[in-house]
Amino acid sequence: MKSDLDALMETKDLDAILVTGPAQHNPDMFYFTGGIHLTQGTLIKKRGEEPVLFYSPMERDEAAKTGLKSISSAEYNFQEFLKEAGGDVSQATVLIYKKKLEDVSITSGRMGIYGMRDVGIVFGIFTALQKLLPELEIVGEVSYSMLLEARTTKDTEEVEHIRAMGQITVEVVGRTADFLKSHKAKDGVLVKEEGQALTVGEVKRKIDMWIVELGAENPHGTIFAIGRDAGVPHSVGTPEDYLRLGETIVFDIFIQEKGGGYHYDFTRTWCLGHATEQAQALYDDVLAVYRQIMDQEVKVNAPGKLLQARTNDLFEELGHPTSRTDPKTQEGYVHGLGHGLGLDVHERPALGATATDKDILRQGVVVTIEPGLYYPERGMGCRLEDTIYVQPDGKIEILADYPLDLIIPIED
Amino acid sequence: MKSDLDALMETKDLDAILVTGPAQHNPDMFYFTGGIHLTQGTLIKKRGEEPVLFYSPMERDEAAKTGLKSISSAEYNFQEFLKEAGGDVSQATVLIYKKKLEDVSITSGRMGIYGMRDVGIVFGIFTALQKLLPELEIVGEVSYSMLLEARTTKDTEEVEHIRAMGQITVEVVGRTADFLKSHKAKDGVLVKEEGQALTVGEVKRKIDMWIVELGAENPHGTIFAIGRDAGVPHSVGTPEDYLRLGETIVFDIFIQEKGGGYHYDFTRTWCLGHATEQAQALYDDVLAVYRQIMDQEVKVNAPGKLLQARTNDLFEELGHPTSRTDPKTQEGYVHGLGHGLGLDVHERPALGATATDKDILRQGVVVTIEPGLYYPERGMGCRLEDTIYVQPDGKIEILADYPLDLIIPIED
Repeated sequence: MKSDLDALMETKDLDAILVTGPAQHNPDMFYFTGGIHLTQGTLIKKRGEEPVLFYSPMERDEAAKTGLKSISSAEYNFQEFLKEAGGDVSQATVLIYKKKLEDVSITSGRMGIYGMRDVGIVFGIFTALQKLLPELEIVGEVSYSMLLEARTTKDTEEVEHIRAMGQITVEVVGRTADFLKSHKAKDGVLVKEEGQALTVGEVKRKIDMWIVELGAENPHGTIFAIGRDAGVPHSVGTPEDYLRLGETIVFDIFIQEKGGGYHYDFTRTWCLGHATEQAQALYDDVLAVYRQIMDQEVKVNAPGKLLQARTNDLFEELGHPTSRTDPKTQEGYVHGLGHGLGLDVHERPALGATATDKDILRQGVVVTIEPGLYYPERGMGCRLEDTIYVQPDGKIEILADYPLDLIIPIED
Repeated sequence: MKSDLDALMETKDLDAILVTGPAQHNPDMFYFTGGIHLTQGTLIKKRGEEPVLFYSPMERDEAAKTGLKSISSAEYNFQEFLKEAGGDVSQATVLIYKKKLEDVSITSGRMGIYGMRDVGIVFGIFTALQKLLPELEIVGEVSYSMLLEARTTKDTEEVEHIRAMGQITVEVVGRTADFLKSHKAKDGVLVKEEGQALTVGEVKRKIDMWIVELGAENPHGTIFAIGRDAGVPHSVGTPEDYLRLGETIVFDIFIQEKGGGYHYDFTRTWCLGHATEQAQALYDDVLAVYRQIMDQEVKVNAPGKLLQARTNDLFEELGHPTSRTDPKTQEGYVHGLGHGLGLDVHERPALGATATDKDILRQGVVVTIEPGLYYPERGMGCRLEDTIYVQPDGKIEILADYPLDLIIPIED
């Protein structure tokens, strides 16, 4: 978490970090600025010191809301730097970066760079800056960066943000269940008042509206997949599909705070009216594994590798193929047990095949637990997912409660 | 436009381009892939050849929708590259990029890189790649990149996307006007059925819901600013504000296609019930300049610099300060006349202070025209904005029609 930053910088031998890009929909910048509206900012932190935020003068009120030490970019007169750069706009931009770094006394050592931004601009600026400041090693971390590592454990304020998204999630899921129940069935599909079949696209449009009404956003979309689509973990569902009774519907919703902040991640599997025998059996197996993992395996300091191995064991014992027994299988249990969640939907720790020795359920992590089974050729799939928090005392907390029930009752 | 790519690459002496990042909410990648769902892709194009898209095998159906020549990343076995890299994950990633470039015969010349992505990953990968391929110069364009220049003119298919967002925009604006009209006034503010005052936050929530209902998204938010906020061009409005009669409301809406595609940009200024004398005079001046510019100045091949100069002339003739007469003024006409619009809200050509000789109303450009006046200390501001298209025959077309009226009638 944020309080670990200096220690992590020391471990990674970083003397400074620089974060760039807008403050919204940019996890590493949001982490420091808390969701204010900055079109473009630069945040620089020396190890052992507070960060400094450089902002555009038009956005001074927003910058002030962060409570960070901040400096207006108006202090750096572009025309003067342009003159110094002989009229070269790119070089002038680089000279301003150099001056900002000098002004916060960063001209040597190792500096990591972070944030989401245009690739060409980043490469152009930082390769030129590297030449101007040969004593300063500019470091681009390609995998599991220092900031991603800091973000792996959450402080209580961050958990409150995630919990709030959890509350909106279960409200939206409840409204969706009520909306489906409010329809009648005809010829095996849900129909509207006028007698026309309801479609997956219409359900998703309603879900999007409720998410907005409750004050969140949904930049990554929602999975609402029925039948064969439910059997393909990456299918988001087909808008023209009808709501057919008895078939499995995988409903996976991963909303975000408005402005690009914290997420929640949640999945239920539903059958409308009744479940086919096959669907019920599939659900029973996933529920059994979900309960076994949640009750017996998910505990503080459990390694991600072990959790995935145990999930594989349990599904294999029930007679299902897994991607451990056959890496190319598209049937059975074909993905990881879960993943860290925060400003990105997918963070660390990893609880799947990519888990390393670093991926453990430490105090402070927020992760999803999402066992599932997929049989596309049999037209079905099932996943049950909740987001959990490993509290500072080591207790495990599901951050939003919602029944695991399979059947949504429908009037004939 | 896209058909200019090879010529522009030649002008910029680029033998190849590489675009990276997701396919959604990533303008340069969206430009080639048209809004499919790719979590992470790499597109490489040699000058004079068709682009090649590298995709994750799980997203093969999405990649196929593009109609592009495409190659699955499964062709590049990570474990083998990891072995070659001596277990170094970052180096293995770099080796895969190198192999992909070799497989499309790009190992020398100049290659520009584009897209939105994590800064550390980009810098780490491409500085290492540059060392491995010394014959290939990797180019990061810091300002007005080749792709931004291609995107400056739109083909008819792109214009249809923008026009569709224009239709949704005017529908939402019409609903907003009707919603305001459906309220009564009490003690000088709009009130709800229960007698409580309506707030700006409630209006914005409605706007967000209609945008979603009509199938678009609103990732950048909406400006709905009344009184003093209307006098500050960058204020998005205060959620707790009441809807006070007679004061100017600046309503600036810039929605985007769902999945991060094309935008529309549109502003009206409204007074509820009646306008104060000052507000009416302010509006009359902005409307006069809007009409003069639209009718007399906006024509094919008009230079952006000239359009801004004429707008300054007109406002100054009416007795208003401008940022030309006083660069630090916060009163009068304080911004540019407009900007190109497409996959980004702000593209080229620029029609303001930053306009260069390249910024002209060529056939195919889509730009906003948005004169405005701001008097924060007098508690008012006014802006009128439409998005126009310079057709291939040179005719100017406003892409979505909506009345310019100031007054929204309100029952007492």
